[in-house]
Amino acid sequence: MNAASPLRADFDALAEFGKLPQGGWSRPAFGAEDRRAHDWFCRRATDAGLSVRTDGMGNVIARLEGSRGGPAIAIGSHLDTVLAGGAFDGAIGVLIGLDVARNIRRGEPDWPVPIEVIAFRDEEGRFGAFTGSLAMTGKLLSEEIGRRRDVDGLLLIDALRAAALDPDAAARAGRDATAFAAYLEVHIEQGSVLERAGVGLGVVSSIVGQERLSIRFTGAADHAGTTPMDMRRDAFAAAARFSDRFREMVVSEGEGVARGTIGIVKVNPNQGNVVPQEVRLGLEIRDISALRLKRLGELTGALAEDVGKALGVDVSLRSVYSSPPIGMSETLRKMLEDAARSLGLDSLDMPCGANHDAGIMAALTPAAMLLVPSEGGRSHCPEEHTGWTHIEAAAHVLERTVRDIAGRMLEGDGLAASA
Amino acid sequence: MNAASPLRADFDALAEFGKLPQGGWSRPAFGAEDRRAHDWFCRRATDAGLSVRTDGMGNVIARLEGSRGGPAIAIGSHLDTVLAGGAFDGAIGVLIGLDVARNIRRGEPDWPVPIEVIAFRDEEGRFGAFTGSLAMTGKLLSEEIGRRRDVDGLLLIDALRAAALDPDAAARAGRDATAFAAYLEVHIEQGSVLERAGVGLGVVSSIVGQERLSIRFTGAADHAGTTPMDMRRDAFAAAARFSDRFREMVVSEGEGVARGTIGIVKVNPNQGNVVPQEVRLGLEIRDISALRLKRLGELTGALAEDVGKALGVDVSLRSVYSSPPIGMSETLRKMLEDAARSLGLDSLDMPCGANHDAGIMAALTPAAMLLVPSEGGRSHCPEEHTGWTHIEAAAHVLERTVRDIAGRMLEGDGLAASA
Repeated sequence: MNAASPLRADFDALAEFGKLPQGGWSRPAFGAEDRRAHDWFCRRATDAGLSVRTDGMGNVIARLEGSRGGPAIAIGSHLDTVLAGGAFDGAIGVLIGLDVARNIRRGEPDWPVPIEVIAFRDEEGRFGAFTGSLAMTGKLLSEEIGRRRDVDGLLLIDALRAAALDPDAAARAGRDATAFAAYLEVHIEQGSVLERAGVGLGVVSSIVGQERLSIRFTGAADHAGTTPMDMRRDAFAAAARFSDRFREMVVSEGEGVARGTIGIVKVNPNQGNVVPQEVRLGLEIRDISALRLKRLGELTGALAEDVGKALGVDVSLRSVYSSPPIGMSETLRKMLEDAARSLGLDSLDMPCGANHDAGIMAALTPAAMLLVPSEGGRSHCPEEHTGWTHIEAAAHVLERTVRDIAGRMLEGDGLAASA
Repeated sequence: MNAASPLRADFDALAEFGKLPQGGWSRPAFGAEDRRAHDWFCRRATDAGLSVRTDGMGNVIARLEGSRGGPAIAIGSHLDTVLAGGAFDGAIGVLIGLDVARNIRRGEPDWPVPIEVIAFRDEEGRFGAFTGSLAMTGKLLSEEIGRRRDVDGLLLIDALRAAALDPDAAARAGRDATAFAAYLEVHIEQGSVLERAGVGLGVVSSIVGQERLSIRFTGAADHAGTTPMDMRRDAFAAAARFSDRFREMVVSEGEGVARGTIGIVKVNPNQGNVVPQEVRLGLEIRDISALRLKRLGELTGALAEDVGKALGVDVSLRSVYSSPPIGMSETLRKMLEDAARSLGLDSLDMPCGANHDAGIMAALTPAAMLLVPSEGGRSHCPEEHTGWTHIEAAAHVLERTVRDIAGRMLEGDGLAASA
């Protein structure tokens, strides 16, 4: 593969859509540039000899039929971007899928197992996260479809209509588990674990679960000059002590895997000469172990209580969002590792700290993910970049794995049982 | 004194100016209600037989002449309020001064020592703090007078003109140290030390000095899901640890006197799924000991450095404001305590955590302050309140002290030497 490879040519062609003059890419779901990108993908997949259809939620399904029929090996990701995001997030997953299907079709006239290359709509969550893949798993009911809006208040159903899609059909985009044998996705890491380890491929063990909490510390807004230290009920003193100990707790109890972040801090009244009356922290814990995630959540609550009591500050804690960890198929993980090894490539077994369409599709079928390094760990920004050597390597490993899965299926080995 | 006492009647009359329908008082300096309040005070003082003049900065000086002449015993405070503030802050200090002068004039036809009751303009700092008292000490040069503006951009000199005052005369409002023998001020505590101690009078030992610092912690805005704990440069983790230890340091090294407050916390980008890249803390330390204040400032800087190094976060520290502690006259403090004791009243020797006109006037003449309890420690709000028993007691102690000072002056004992 080189600069003129079909994969690279696809990447360059797709990168024309939503490219901003000041740098970066904006293809918000169902917007004009996102629609142009999906139209382009439909044409490209048709040109590659695949049969293309768009489901009611706008997911594009490009299918290579197999001579033996049966469930399909699906490869997918998404074409939408965040605002002023990068060219790699999502795009490489879809284009590698197309590349694999194209290569197999070209080289294997009697290919036995159906392959589907899926471009999921609205992975980035303009209308709430994973709109497309959730619809495909049948988990988006028409009531929720009717409620979803973007930040400007635009209804998803109006966005669907503007994209010439039928909201009633969107609610019927769900597919049956029997349609799939496996789901594979290549995605950029969006972190710097691979880069620092000097390894070009990551095989995802699990997608982390999350607990998001909102913690409110309420004290008293005393005068900073006239109130002695021992008469204060300083909400930020409590929030700071809690935050320091929360981090220490995640490090000491998280066994090198859990991640705890306090990303949101709001202080009231936030004036130099007034002891803070109220602090709200937005906190999240992520872990691949459901048990440890639960335990860390409980320790967090106890810690907040303890610190509040010690400093005379009231504490209230609210769960904002909770999602369980999602294990990837052990069989598929092993096949990805074997495929990499057979091509002379190292891979790293690692958790995935963010959810992806693979995490949603895992509810339907055995799923696995391959991560490629993000330079400097950067993503969701114009500087997002992954070296082409890594992308090519991932494409090779994915193609090999698809062939291996098809081989197993022909031998009658199911994948689901060991997933 | 009872509900019909002249002091209480003055208080009730003054409280008509700037009274808000929704509760609270707004008399911003040089505004219409502030001007009405000062005009009222001029009439009231004239009615009491005092000679009244207004200096170039709008400070009203109501003077009772003394048969022996010489330097005056000054009693002052201010009539302006913050927006939607209370009726007690400043007002009681001026009105007690008026009450003392009125009582003495009535009872002592041959009173020997001049008394000045001063209503300082703009203590609350609409045009920068202590505009009136700084002008009287000669510390406001005409350049600075020309630069001062309120938050809406209105120039002080235009506010002066609107109040029929001459900006050129404002720069000549400075008076000589020889004009004064002493300065006394009664003020609400604006804290709850007296209330909790169950003592009605506080004698200020020193007005605290302040160090205000802005500390910036700069890390990296990594993805909260994909970045392991040991790869983070979390600006808020550093800010939180620093903040907890800063508080502990102030408590352990501050000898029960120093106060340290982190009132301002600004986190960037302040998003749930992004490790904080930058945190700015607005911090202040107050202390009556200049040495300890300096030491606490140095310890604060060292602590921020240490925490930043330990967590891989860059730290920069900037001094925003610095003012030295201002000692009150030991002679006057003792006289206030003795006067209280002779009237059967307890008093508490205590630092004053906020600056007042007395802190400014202390540059000219021996100064002392008497604090009265603030209910619930509240001030600068409509609920600001001080019981009348306490106000009456303070008025009695002040009158006794003024008589004692005059007695000493007649005996030839200066106050300045021992100040």
